Amino acid sequence: MKSACVITIGNEILKGRTVNSNAAFIGKFLTNHGYEVNRGFTVKDDPGEIKWAVENSIGKYDLVVSTGGLGPTFDDMTVESVAKALGLKMVEDDGTKQMLLKRYRELGAEATPERLKLALVPEGSHVIRNRVGAAPGIFLSSGSSSLLILPGVPKEMEAILDDSEPLVGNGGRSYAEENRHLAGVMESSMVPIVNEIMARYDGGVYIKTHPLKSETNEPEIDIEVSAYGTTTEEAEKLVSEAINELVRKAESLRR
Amino acid sequence: MKSACVITIGNEILKGRTVNSNAAFIGKFLTNHGYEVNRGFTVKDDPGEIKWAVENSIGKYDLVVSTGGLGPTFDDMTVESVAKALGLKMVEDDGTKQMLLKRYRELGAEATPERLKLALVPEGSHVIRNRVGAAPGIFLSSGSSSLLILPGVPKEMEAILDDSEPLVGNGGRSYAEENRHLAGVMESSMVPIVNEIMARYDGGVYIKTHPLKSETNEPEIDIEVSAYGTTTEEAEKLVSEAINELVRKAESLRR
Repeated sequence: MKSACVITIGNEILKGRTVNSNAAFIGKFLTNHGYEVNRGFTVKDDPGEIKWAVENSIGKYDLVVSTGGLGPTFDDMTVESVAKALGLKMVEDDGTKQMLLKRYRELGAEATPERLKLALVPEGSHVIRNRVGAAPGIFLSSGSSSLLILPGVPKEMEAILDDSEPLVGNGGRSYAEENRHLAGVMESSMVPIVNEIMARYDGGVYIKTHPLKSETNEPEIDIEVSAYGTTTEEAEKLVSEAINELVRKAESLRR
Repeated sequence: MKSACVITIGNEILKGRTVNSNAAFIGKFLTNHGYEVNRGFTVKDDPGEIKWAVENSIGKYDLVVSTGGLGPTFDDMTVESVAKALGLKMVEDDGTKQMLLKRYRELGAEATPERLKLALVPEGSHVIRNRVGAAPGIFLSSGSSSLLILPGVPKEMEAILDDSEPLVGNGGRSYAEENRHLAGVMESSMVPIVNEIMARYDGGVYIKTHPLKSETNEPEIDIEVSAYGTTTEEAEKLVSEAINELVRKAESLRR
């Protein structure tokens, strides 16, 4: 199974001004495409920080996906910082330049250098058109890793991620997950059952309990069971069997 | 100004099952307490991954805050992994143990080993009671860094973070931020004004534009202006002056 790392770029995420829903969207997309998302970084709009994130992910994970820092402003520095970190020259992508020139001509706005900056990409990039906005996505290979660079505006990020499907491909496994809500059962009461079932499946299924309320006389938990399989059917069968057994046994623990 | 790093622990965040609102809450809290949040890690429920996060933050940032992995289940392994990473023995915190014994006695439930696991903390820990749930918060000093370990259940995390205020203290600066919504102005049109004002303040204010829609004939942006000062009044004055000038100049760019 292929591994992945998600890099979120933006001071607003670190400061908590913006909740990182982008990383969740990307994480779900990659998991559903058979990747295992192994690590996430959030870094500032800063060339040194972006360089650090690239150097600590490229070569370590099969796929690295970044989001943020692709716009026209001074603090949109992802593409240039990535190019520097990987020792790649910046080149102009003619398709993007023509699109930008047309776009701003139609808007009656000047094609200023900051607007045309969006056409500069690292050499060897595969450019992914942005159906929703201006900044294109960029797909790059570097050694054993692939890097997908996405904008931070959620609608644009989502559209380009969707269009990157032929490039991102499949991580090599099929993922399935089921969640059940259980009222009246304490998370700590579930421990022996969870351990017993997980041991029996020998790593084949992963069970996680999420307490929704604290352990009082009215506890509530979500049970999450997931598995990777060689086919979706195989993964779904494992998950379905395990969660049904788990819930049946948990019913007897209801307070 | 003191620096901070936020570590989120949990497969469900990486897979996108759960949006990382905890990191945003902690980031906002720390920023409002005068810290600069420099980096965020999200790692799996895995001792090696937690160790990696601790080793890449302790000694580099003044304050490291972790959230997640404090419960009774097999994959709640934060405290033990942190202790190992820092070379600290695990000891039983008697106050927590007594609280747990009382709690489960009142619930008519057995004090099983997995329930009493929550009383084990690294030696030298300052234990912060959990007003909302069972798992206490842990505050530790390690060399030049402090480490605050919080649970992942949002209400419990928030309550303990709040109660940790005397320990976390202040990062040494006062933070102020203002946001304004502007319709009809393209982000790329703002670039020269933003650059001019930021240069004039010489790093004293930070201006970030957030496009809400793509640059079409109906663009919409949020303008965020922030500053750190020696007093709140100083920071607020800088922000207020800069944002008023920015908005005044932006009005002339409205399409």
